[in-house]
Amino acid sequence: MTESNKKIVIALGGNALQDSNSPATAEAQLEVVKRTCNYIVEIVKKNYQIAIVHGNGPQVGRILLASETAKDATPVMPFDVIGAMSQGYIGYHIQQALTAALKKEEKDISVVTLVTQVVVDGEDPGFQNPTKPIGSFYTEEEAKKLMEEKGYIMKEDAGRGWRRVVASPIPRRIVEIDTVKRLWDSTIVITAGGGGVPVVELPDGSLEGVAAVIDKDFAAELLAEQIEADALLILTEVDKASIHFNKPNQLDLDFMTVAEAEQYIAEGHFAPGSMLPKIRAAVKFAKKNPGKKAIIASLFKAVEAIEGRSGTTITL
Amino acid sequence: MTESNKKIVIALGGNALQDSNSPATAEAQLEVVKRTCNYIVEIVKKNYQIAIVHGNGPQVGRILLASETAKDATPVMPFDVIGAMSQGYIGYHIQQALTAALKKEEKDISVVTLVTQVVVDGEDPGFQNPTKPIGSFYTEEEAKKLMEEKGYIMKEDAGRGWRRVVASPIPRRIVEIDTVKRLWDSTIVITAGGGGVPVVELPDGSLEGVAAVIDKDFAAELLAEQIEADALLILTEVDKASIHFNKPNQLDLDFMTVAEAEQYIAEGHFAPGSMLPKIRAAVKFAKKNPGKKAIIASLFKAVEAIEGRSGTTITL
Repeated sequence: MTESNKKIVIALGGNALQDSNSPATAEAQLEVVKRTCNYIVEIVKKNYQIAIVHGNGPQVGRILLASETAKDATPVMPFDVIGAMSQGYIGYHIQQALTAALKKEEKDISVVTLVTQVVVDGEDPGFQNPTKPIGSFYTEEEAKKLMEEKGYIMKEDAGRGWRRVVASPIPRRIVEIDTVKRLWDSTIVITAGGGGVPVVELPDGSLEGVAAVIDKDFAAELLAEQIEADALLILTEVDKASIHFNKPNQLDLDFMTVAEAEQYIAEGHFAPGSMLPKIRAAVKFAKKNPGKKAIIASLFKAVEAIEGRSGTTITL
Repeated sequence: MTESNKKIVIALGGNALQDSNSPATAEAQLEVVKRTCNYIVEIVKKNYQIAIVHGNGPQVGRILLASETAKDATPVMPFDVIGAMSQGYIGYHIQQALTAALKKEEKDISVVTLVTQVVVDGEDPGFQNPTKPIGSFYTEEEAKKLMEEKGYIMKEDAGRGWRRVVASPIPRRIVEIDTVKRLWDSTIVITAGGGGVPVVELPDGSLEGVAAVIDKDFAAELLAEQIEADALLILTEVDKASIHFNKPNQLDLDFMTVAEAEQYIAEGHFAPGSMLPKIRAAVKFAKKNPGKKAIIASLFKAVEAIEGRSGTTITL
């Protein structure tokens, strides 16, 4: 894919918003977002049309922590509202920083954030088996204390420590999709941030927020399907997906067919809550869109990955 | 104005989001927003095209309070980010509730929230003389304690108690205006929530958030100008603007010319932080748009006010 005007949905991982070396402040986030936007601009300069989905795990965790800590001063916010707040917070930073980065390149393209609801199935098995890590990492000891004291469900996450987990239902429908479609040709839309605010459809057709986190890679995949994007680009910390990850025989993958990816998933090569949802989302997109591709790549090699010189490409 | 397809910018006051009798929770807000949306739908049913601006004072106050209370657990959020978070929070509730209310009337109209930045002048005198009340009401004693302990500037507010005040600069430019214009014909856009996230323009043309609150009525006025709305409708608690407010000779006004309104302002009839900014915004719109009108009215009599049967109408 080297032609211009192709449409790409970009899913930004945690490292696009936060640097592990910098403090967990909004000010530090803005600096990281500015750096991220310089990489996104390189994609725009190649004349790809883009839409942006971002994660929100640590941000939601901190807003929740502040709300719970201050519970005697002001009522605790429900989880759906915290998701919407995080979309405002992160979207604001991205739209501000990306506009500035585009301006430097004399590109006058509107960048906006849509507060986005995503419908999930109230009967989704995700609600019975929470798997989505949110918030900070804790030691095993701290985690057990939090489980006892606050009733959180906490799990060990890919060797990085313990984190709270909440339900992670499959996204079924992006409520604001018509507006995304309407804007797509002229505007860079930041949408389904954090996977979208999870809502269920009530019998009368109205929507109601639920306590869950939709995986942002699955939301990005759904978005890519619905706006008929040419590619789904999932940006993360590592250059490529790997099998035998962190083992002596680690093998980084340039390319996978859907069949190969499914085989690797079955063999347990990809960490839940980390690489696994990215692979699953990529597989879903590639499977539903013969001839199109999903790419998992480093944020810092995004253009190279689109051009096939980095990242892991997944096709049917 | 009884013809259909006229364009109205609606500015929603605090009572559209919060009931003085209900708790300050997000759950209670959603219930109030649902009620509010039933009134907004009545306007849509008359075939007016609308855009919505809402206030965010109490919400920003509570998010700020939570963040400051939890400062030892997680870093305090800057004020611009809190504004963006409140746009996500409130916009989410309005778009969800308004879509449901429209659906009941078999109206399939998209409702979206745009995270909106509004440019202010860094040299605005507002930064030297803070006037915008935010957050909860306090007794004089509590207020003095907060001023001492936290360095807040607090002022007595229209006989309702003491509140913190921050800078309230004049809005100069709605950054996302092109997108609002693009969507206006097809979509109900919730924009410039809380007056917009205040930003200043740096010498290189990039934007930077500042600690301030833009008056939502002025932001709505600017929006109405920029999208060439036919009317600016400022909805609040009272049926009409009044002179000699809360005095034995209180006189409710059906109609004011700009000249009359300016005279009443000069005579000090309108309370700063309450009716005064509404009158000023209405005057500004009427003055700049000969033949068009601004209306200040009760949320519960919005349609009547548009049709000239309630509210205070201001024209040149």
